[in-house]
Amino acid sequence: MANANQNNPRKEVTYALVGVVVFLVLVLIVALSGYFRPGGHNPAVAANDEVNSSNSAEATAQQAPEPIVSVRDEPIEPIVVEAVAEPKKVALGKMLWFDTRLSKSGTLSCNSCHDLAKGGTDNIPTSVGYNWAEGPINSPTVLNSRYSLAQFWDGRAKDLMEQAGGPIENPLEMASSHEFVVKVLNSIPEYKALFHEAFANEDDINIDQVTSAIALFEETLVTPNSRFDQWLGGDDESITAQELKGYQLFKDSGCVACHNGSAVGGGSFQKFGVFDKYTTQNLAEGRYAVTGNDDDKHLFKVPTLRNIDLTYPYFHDGQVDSLADAVNIMGKIQLNRDFTSEETADIVAFLKTLTGDQPQIKLPKLPPSNENTPKPVPFEKQS
Amino acid sequence: MANANQNNPRKEVTYALVGVVVFLVLVLIVALSGYFRPGGHNPAVAANDEVNSSNSAEATAQQAPEPIVSVRDEPIEPIVVEAVAEPKKVALGKMLWFDTRLSKSGTLSCNSCHDLAKGGTDNIPTSVGYNWAEGPINSPTVLNSRYSLAQFWDGRAKDLMEQAGGPIENPLEMASSHEFVVKVLNSIPEYKALFHEAFANEDDINIDQVTSAIALFEETLVTPNSRFDQWLGGDDESITAQELKGYQLFKDSGCVACHNGSAVGGGSFQKFGVFDKYTTQNLAEGRYAVTGNDDDKHLFKVPTLRNIDLTYPYFHDGQVDSLADAVNIMGKIQLNRDFTSEETADIVAFLKTLTGDQPQIKLPKLPPSNENTPKPVPFEKQS
Repeated sequence: MANANQNNPRKEVTYALVGVVVFLVLVLIVALSGYFRPGGHNPAVAANDEVNSSNSAEATAQQAPEPIVSVRDEPIEPIVVEAVAEPKKVALGKMLWFDTRLSKSGTLSCNSCHDLAKGGTDNIPTSVGYNWAEGPINSPTVLNSRYSLAQFWDGRAKDLMEQAGGPIENPLEMASSHEFVVKVLNSIPEYKALFHEAFANEDDINIDQVTSAIALFEETLVTPNSRFDQWLGGDDESITAQELKGYQLFKDSGCVACHNGSAVGGGSFQKFGVFDKYTTQNLAEGRYAVTGNDDDKHLFKVPTLRNIDLTYPYFHDGQVDSLADAVNIMGKIQLNRDFTSEETADIVAFLKTLTGDQPQIKLPKLPPSNENTPKPVPFEKQS
Repeated sequence: MANANQNNPRKEVTYALVGVVVFLVLVLIVALSGYFRPGGHNPAVAANDEVNSSNSAEATAQQAPEPIVSVRDEPIEPIVVEAVAEPKKVALGKMLWFDTRLSKSGTLSCNSCHDLAKGGTDNIPTSVGYNWAEGPINSPTVLNSRYSLAQFWDGRAKDLMEQAGGPIENPLEMASSHEFVVKVLNSIPEYKALFHEAFANEDDINIDQVTSAIALFEETLVTPNSRFDQWLGGDDESITAQELKGYQLFKDSGCVACHNGSAVGGGSFQKFGVFDKYTTQNLAEGRYAVTGNDDDKHLFKVPTLRNIDLTYPYFHDGQVDSLADAVNIMGKIQLNRDFTSEETADIVAFLKTLTGDQPQIKLPKLPPSNENTPKPVPFEKQS
């Protein structure tokens, strides 16, 4: 029989052919089995599905387009989305972000004043807190806040983690206490398990873990791929001639001296009212409240101009509704310049090109309280 | 040359082999090109991506598992998810659901009191409205509300569309007016375009369109695939022996007489306090407030028990935090029965099997207001 094979070259080749066909069919089967398994085909999509289903942040990184690298020599840099380094903490941070049990009343969450459906703001002059308290200052957007040199208008928190602890205890905001919040979270087994996993220990949940998870979630809240960023990347068609003219004026008139970098702001404290006073009922002390230096009176952190079309009303007191009015006021009191109405319109047109891709947020499912969970106090009972 | 080929069978077979290999390689290339195109591999995932990216409802239908059909003869039916019939209206309804501009203050949305991260409720006894007003009654869950015979605890709205108009104008809730809300929406070009497309006309937006879009979104908010539904579908392993015992007792003791159907409730009005009075500071009139019939005093719509583990606190006044306490009270005053602590635990265990898959909600991006948009009034200024 061995001889028969050796003596028949046609049969030999046919055997080889059958072998090759069987091999290729097997390759096809393996390929297609992955192909028809939902999410099994594309590593990026699969990873993202998983992150989403485990209540994680939307992992902007995975969904983001190719990072834009500026090909122009400009004082504004495109936003580059970084990979989420600690997805479990970010996922937990997102749950805490939406959890109203961080407030005394059980009705206010981080998202109440920094609404991710509305550019990370509440779009009112000053926020509504516990018992309908009126906040002292406008809620700045959380979007791209990671690029700020410090947090709050007066920079009193050095970073997002330090910031996150503030509103929880502020009696005009969430009006709770760190102690109460930690008791609530420790009473909920699902939260404990998620904290243990994210922080790789079996300790009781503490407030530093809470604020660090929230801060890590906030760090993912960036808005890449604005039309202006596309222009920085070399796409001449992504902004109009008027928008480009507005940008030129924005540079030439000096706005860019403070509004620059990735966030188009957030990099320094500046005096509000250089050439003229800003007239407001709410002339906060600004940076002075932190440092006590007379030189710091009415200095505020320069706000980001990213997504400025979404983050009205404007300024620390939220007293200006129109972007055109805001541009005119800034020209007058900061630069001693009266823009013509055409110039103002050009700058406004440019500013609207700074709206980027908003974070894709899938609402988390919050684990329920139980009989051991301290109860919220929505209404103070009269004694 | 033709002859040479005909005379060499080995060459002939080699040619055939090359042809087959080229063909199979081409098949592989076509297969893999689809494979590596994001979303291009799986029609279901692709469709869902598209729905999400166009701000639509999460189209629970697309993500839902195979519908469960009951194989058991039981008074409770599994939830069957229907395809979204009008996705454009549903997408619009989702935006309106999260839009705080439906409230006078600009801070309250439908989601404030029916939080989709928390079982469609606010988890406090009575809700917080404009100017920190205390609502008169517990906010019922929006989840599976489509299965109710009418809306509100007293059934005063015949359907979800009629219900949706109520809280907008209620001075203790959103405290706005239909007129104001319609003015706000008509001032926003993105909203106008979406309404025109969804309702296939170029008319100004009217309140009926607003409430019908919200109602259509709410109709998608169902929670299929609970462990109990899996058991109804024939999976004996999906619930434990204790949970099954609890269900038997739930039937045998008479709970199921009112808590039945797809929503395990919602199908009738019943007197609260048949054998004994319910003691509360908030003994609302119930159905009597709608009909004026003496027989309807203290009749309430039977609430759904779906997701009851998430929708605490319980009863129309939200005065009961613990599910065990709620079961005991119901046994006593509705059925004249004192459950043993073991019986109560069994029923509670059964009730927790009714938590289903929560709707997958991607937060919408709300279009910004502009200079023509009427402003919210978060704080009443003292005159």
